[in-house]
Amino acid sequence: MTDFEYRDRRLFCEETSLEEIAKMTGTPCYVYSNRTILDRFDAYNLAFGDIPHTVCYAVKANSNLALLNLLANAGAGFDIVSGGELYRVLKAGGDPRKVVFSGVGKTSDEIDFALSHNIFSFNCESEPELELIDSIAGERGVKARVAMRVNPDVDAATHPYISTGLREHKFGIDIAEVEDVYRRGMALANVALESVSCHIGSQLLDTQPLLEALRKMLGLIDRLRAAGAPISHIDLGGGVGVPYRSSEQRPDIDAFVQDLRGLLAGKRLHAMVEPGRSIVGEAGVLLTRVLYRKRNGDKEFVIVDAAMNDLIRPALYQSHHEIAPVALSDGETIRADVVGPVCETGDFLARDREMPDLRGGDLLAIMTAGAYGFAQASNYNSRPRPAEVLVDGKGWRIVRRRESYDDLIQPEVGARAEIVQ
Amino acid sequence: MTDFEYRDRRLFCEETSLEEIAKMTGTPCYVYSNRTILDRFDAYNLAFGDIPHTVCYAVKANSNLALLNLLANAGAGFDIVSGGELYRVLKAGGDPRKVVFSGVGKTSDEIDFALSHNIFSFNCESEPELELIDSIAGERGVKARVAMRVNPDVDAATHPYISTGLREHKFGIDIAEVEDVYRRGMALANVALESVSCHIGSQLLDTQPLLEALRKMLGLIDRLRAAGAPISHIDLGGGVGVPYRSSEQRPDIDAFVQDLRGLLAGKRLHAMVEPGRSIVGEAGVLLTRVLYRKRNGDKEFVIVDAAMNDLIRPALYQSHHEIAPVALSDGETIRADVVGPVCETGDFLARDREMPDLRGGDLLAIMTAGAYGFAQASNYNSRPRPAEVLVDGKGWRIVRRRESYDDLIQPEVGARAEIVQ
Repeated sequence: MTDFEYRDRRLFCEETSLEEIAKMTGTPCYVYSNRTILDRFDAYNLAFGDIPHTVCYAVKANSNLALLNLLANAGAGFDIVSGGELYRVLKAGGDPRKVVFSGVGKTSDEIDFALSHNIFSFNCESEPELELIDSIAGERGVKARVAMRVNPDVDAATHPYISTGLREHKFGIDIAEVEDVYRRGMALANVALESVSCHIGSQLLDTQPLLEALRKMLGLIDRLRAAGAPISHIDLGGGVGVPYRSSEQRPDIDAFVQDLRGLLAGKRLHAMVEPGRSIVGEAGVLLTRVLYRKRNGDKEFVIVDAAMNDLIRPALYQSHHEIAPVALSDGETIRADVVGPVCETGDFLARDREMPDLRGGDLLAIMTAGAYGFAQASNYNSRPRPAEVLVDGKGWRIVRRRESYDDLIQPEVGARAEIVQ
Repeated sequence: MTDFEYRDRRLFCEETSLEEIAKMTGTPCYVYSNRTILDRFDAYNLAFGDIPHTVCYAVKANSNLALLNLLANAGAGFDIVSGGELYRVLKAGGDPRKVVFSGVGKTSDEIDFALSHNIFSFNCESEPELELIDSIAGERGVKARVAMRVNPDVDAATHPYISTGLREHKFGIDIAEVEDVYRRGMALANVALESVSCHIGSQLLDTQPLLEALRKMLGLIDRLRAAGAPISHIDLGGGVGVPYRSSEQRPDIDAFVQDLRGLLAGKRLHAMVEPGRSIVGEAGVLLTRVLYRKRNGDKEFVIVDAAMNDLIRPALYQSHHEIAPVALSDGETIRADVVGPVCETGDFLARDREMPDLRGGDLLAIMTAGAYGFAQASNYNSRPRPAEVLVDGKGWRIVRRRESYDDLIQPEVGARAEIVQ
């Protein structure tokens, strides 16, 4: 269940009509439900109960300040992957002591920035990175908390671009080599290796591979502890998927966390998870208006004002998004491609989809667009990025204004004019 | 031949060392050669000679104001696909009377904006769009010059995402139906249908399909003229490719234009072309620095500070870019994936590539990144977009400053705070 439902044949987000938002804000426009976001976060947070735990929202899924603020107020920690994401968390009022910093390519500046705010922990991806963290922490005279990210060699069975837990991926350290790394790492003066982490991929509708990864990690923790490593935390990463097709089933978050609790019982571990998509994915839609109908040969096209620069998932991952008319109608349906104004054939939002017999001006909601939607938006074709709206019951507010033409060129106009010779 | 060459085993752009630019500007950073851009533009412009013609640079390939200004000063017209691109052309000092406006999804506001600046012509993609242009021109009391975009059903034999000239694509009007459209269009009061246009796709290393399209278009023009349409212009679109692999051959632009001239002889047509990639593609590199080396099982990874958010072509189109070390070295080579810091497996710049035995801090140039590089950049993973530099001989200047963390959030901080109820 989500908070996008029809009332009197009009699509609402909570108690707010999407037609009203489109009229006042224009299209394309992302619309998020406050209630869905908090429901999903609470599903994780409450299921852990009295087990020591931190639910670190994966900022990369949707980094809008208003959403981060909402989650910070609900008690969330944050999983970040860049200095820019840490900056966002701080601006949104997030607690840096609940921040874990993941990612294979942390720069010196980013590590220093994170240490200056005393973040909870680095999820470290390689030994050269561990040495760099040790050295920067030494310069600062602090001890950096670090979890080595382990590559547990579990097949996440998802899209190859977002599967990350196999040996041939760039992420983490091979589980067979990680004990040696901890032994060497414990000799470093400025890092505290008290945690292990993993993340096997994204958009998993079956949580069994996540449980398999946890079992492997618990075996590893036993061996690390036997070797003298004081492991107190485990970070299981994210990965729980959302139903993009009406035929797909939403994983039961409560049941999944109960399974985790079962495996963690008696292990004296603080549990951390990093959900992103499963918190915000279903909480957002991309509102768009039909510009033109068109037929080329046997093919029907519905040309809308949202494009691949606004939502690249169909082009990049061949992803499916359900598309819902904002006003229900009776009568004929058509089969059509839903495409945007961008000048390439890769600019499509749906292909060969059964649709109402739409006309120019009709509004559509591209569903389940809350995660990896705006986050991956670009200005391709010099298109200003869309507005973002957060709905709370009958009220709503613009949480990111639509970009202007002037925004597009501002860093160019402001660029240094003098010539370096 | 391009203007990126080694001097004393260091890679230069024209007479400027890329090491120097990286040191002063930081990485990642796009670097463009003034000279290559003008060489390529002149190759088109001079080959047309005394034939009436306009070379309309396709802004979508790279819309940096400094590049547009360079081309405007060289006499270029511009092929735009959005109001944002028109805004850029105007800010760069381009002449709107040399602007053609392409694209399947022009909005009312964009059409009105273009008419207010008296652009040369609309490349119109559908009859509903033609009616909309007629209606908006009527409100303004002007006559809009329009070319219908014809879909000539020629197979461009390129990547499916950038092939646009087949009947099943969203672009243009089927060549078999276009005479009826002109007949109906000539009855509209506020449009002047004096041109035809086509564009069959992008990155064509063989120009034969472009000549085949021209032959089909000339036959169509004969039929349109016989039916009374006063066709004075033909817009052949763009499509000429660039060699992304060292094994590929650059199409001979002069020979291609001579072929066009041969076919156009005696036809009383003003010729327009819309090259984008073939002007700026080879004129740019993406400079990046190695952050870490890493081995997972049998696989070597070179982790650099540029990522899919800076250059999405490898992930989106499975594109190949040659990668050149900025400093040549002797000794061992390795086979490695070159990957960025973004947290997905799709974030790669090269896979299984023979490379020098690189170390952290080494500089690499990702070649042939001038087209569809920065233009498709995003802030994914809250990564500020890179700086852009334009080199002219021994001098160079920053033509777009690197984004700051503050740039990332500015439209959110500035968003309206009050709640609409």
